[in-house]
Amino acid sequence: MTDDPLPSLDGFTRRDWQSGETTGTIRVAMVGLGWWTREQAIPAVAASDFCETTAVVSGSAEKVRSATDLADSIAHGLTYEEFHDGVAADAYDAVYVVTPNGAHLPYVETAADLGKAVLCEKPLEASVERAERLVEACGDADVPLMVAYRMQTEPAVRRAREVVESGAIGEPVVVHGHMSQRLLDEVVPDPDQWRLDPGLSGGATVMDIGLYPLNTARFVLDADPVRVRARAVVESEPFDAVGDEHVSFGVDFDDGTLAACTASQSAVQSSFLRVTGTEGEVTLDPAFYNRQNRGFRLSVGSQSVDYDFDRVDQMTEEFDYFAHCLLTGTDPHPDGDHALVDMRAMDAIYAAAERGSDVEVESA
Amino acid sequence: MTDDPLPSLDGFTRRDWQSGETTGTIRVAMVGLGWWTREQAIPAVAASDFCETTAVVSGSAEKVRSATDLADSIAHGLTYEEFHDGVAADAYDAVYVVTPNGAHLPYVETAADLGKAVLCEKPLEASVERAERLVEACGDADVPLMVAYRMQTEPAVRRAREVVESGAIGEPVVVHGHMSQRLLDEVVPDPDQWRLDPGLSGGATVMDIGLYPLNTARFVLDADPVRVRARAVVESEPFDAVGDEHVSFGVDFDDGTLAACTASQSAVQSSFLRVTGTEGEVTLDPAFYNRQNRGFRLSVGSQSVDYDFDRVDQMTEEFDYFAHCLLTGTDPHPDGDHALVDMRAMDAIYAAAERGSDVEVESA
Repeated sequence: MTDDPLPSLDGFTRRDWQSGETTGTIRVAMVGLGWWTREQAIPAVAASDFCETTAVVSGSAEKVRSATDLADSIAHGLTYEEFHDGVAADAYDAVYVVTPNGAHLPYVETAADLGKAVLCEKPLEASVERAERLVEACGDADVPLMVAYRMQTEPAVRRAREVVESGAIGEPVVVHGHMSQRLLDEVVPDPDQWRLDPGLSGGATVMDIGLYPLNTARFVLDADPVRVRARAVVESEPFDAVGDEHVSFGVDFDDGTLAACTASQSAVQSSFLRVTGTEGEVTLDPAFYNRQNRGFRLSVGSQSVDYDFDRVDQMTEEFDYFAHCLLTGTDPHPDGDHALVDMRAMDAIYAAAERGSDVEVESA
Repeated sequence: MTDDPLPSLDGFTRRDWQSGETTGTIRVAMVGLGWWTREQAIPAVAASDFCETTAVVSGSAEKVRSATDLADSIAHGLTYEEFHDGVAADAYDAVYVVTPNGAHLPYVETAADLGKAVLCEKPLEASVERAERLVEACGDADVPLMVAYRMQTEPAVRRAREVVESGAIGEPVVVHGHMSQRLLDEVVPDPDQWRLDPGLSGGATVMDIGLYPLNTARFVLDADPVRVRARAVVESEPFDAVGDEHVSFGVDFDDGTLAACTASQSAVQSSFLRVTGTEGEVTLDPAFYNRQNRGFRLSVGSQSVDYDFDRVDQMTEEFDYFAHCLLTGTDPHPDGDHALVDMRAMDAIYAAAERGSDVEVESA
């Protein structure tokens, strides 16, 4: 950054985390073969510089068979039992866990027992207690644990964080963030899906997509949540059990910034993040969906610029960052402790919605 | 509106409230001669079709003298005492009250006693109780009372309301709204101003600018607030007495929509309103400042259009609408009862911030 109020942000999509001389390949086993793994993760890894998928793991023999065809590098299709038994464990270096939230723990425990690095999907688990056990398992086994907040390796988000850190918008004052999609109409048209089962998901909307404005605000501000207030509303019957279809929540950060966030599983696909400071603003709109356009606007005083940049595949960036950390012996971020803060914050959001009062986010 | 998902919004700035054959002029007395009256209201009325300023009223003889020079039509410069005594009352038909919030009541009472129509600045007064007395005074005297929410005659806001009513974005689900300015650095550089005196203002940020996202969301949704939650933060000493410099508040509307709003008197000038529905979104950005650009974006599904339109002077629109109502014998909107809902909602917002819990908005 320079002192120019509207910096050029040269090399917008540069990988600021990548060192030039790094070589090598991390072999990944993917655990859980839902649409996300098949349509996003496997193609993203195939396009990556530092990873390849060598094993896939699922409870469904049919899913395993069809997934082994998705990339030439996939040599092993394992059942969950075979994975727990360590079958073909020599064929992979790291495990990407992308099962339903409430099933992350046993697969991460097995990965840790096998001495494998772990990339675990967010949210970490379906409850704070299980998430703490997950982090502890990786710590006890001394295996690297990264949590798959793909926004943290999205260039637009990294540039927003740099802009805020540079002071270009002054001190951050308020943040608005939103994420919505039509889960049942457009994403997963099945009312029996695990996201709507509170035991497997821990909540439908805050846990699945409300997490994006929450965590991205944390990352851009470099601040942590201390207090929340919230409202959760259910309009359609499939959301009765989980209790959150549309949500609105306020988050007070430890730097004094106030965030106003919303999320809905039954609204048009939309996402944005807007940080308003004493001197300017930075806005990502659209912000959060992979393989969707990104917008990046920086305003300082009355000047405003929309930056053009090439969209990257967020999953490729995320996997390459994770693999690069492993290849260079660097601790990956976001780690388990970072993700536990979100788990506690989301627990507080659900409690605030239930009680109708502000709730402090518990400390570790 | 048509069935086209992205309507053309022909005649964007049309005055949908104006009948072609209306003629006549409403003569206005302006009570209170701060910068807003001198720099915004008097020039706006001079440019209007249906009004002229014929009298100005202030406690300062010097302000009165300088204000009579601001328009040729101003024939009378009155002290507050002369106004209360009815001096030159035959020279005006209506009274625009633009004193500090907590001083609206006595001037509106006098205007009502004189049988004059009233255009009262928002918020209605500094407390719910005084606002109720103000509305009662106009009702008892049977004089028209309009409250000066200039966003309700801003064409971009009226088009947004029509878009929502048409169903083009489906059912509204969430709203984000924000307004901020640097009050002490850029607007009124005086730490002793009335906005920072709780007795005169009733609050610095919710009452002065938080009201914009609140009321504009109400108007665009055609819904009323039923429950709020909030946080108010003070960072700089001049805001200690009022207690709100930066605010974040959630509003639950009676149609089920959840609004996430923020406002700050110590952040870069910025404003926006974004309504996300089941099928699309409408965004005003910038939204709220007079004589500033407006933005109007409508998205339906994956289609999105930014509409170009000529900016209007919001104060001219507001005064012409008010005068047109009087000339045609139509009840002006927003009226006192409408404004009382905001007063009760803002009272609830301050209470929620104080208590750290959700607060129901009291009914009339």
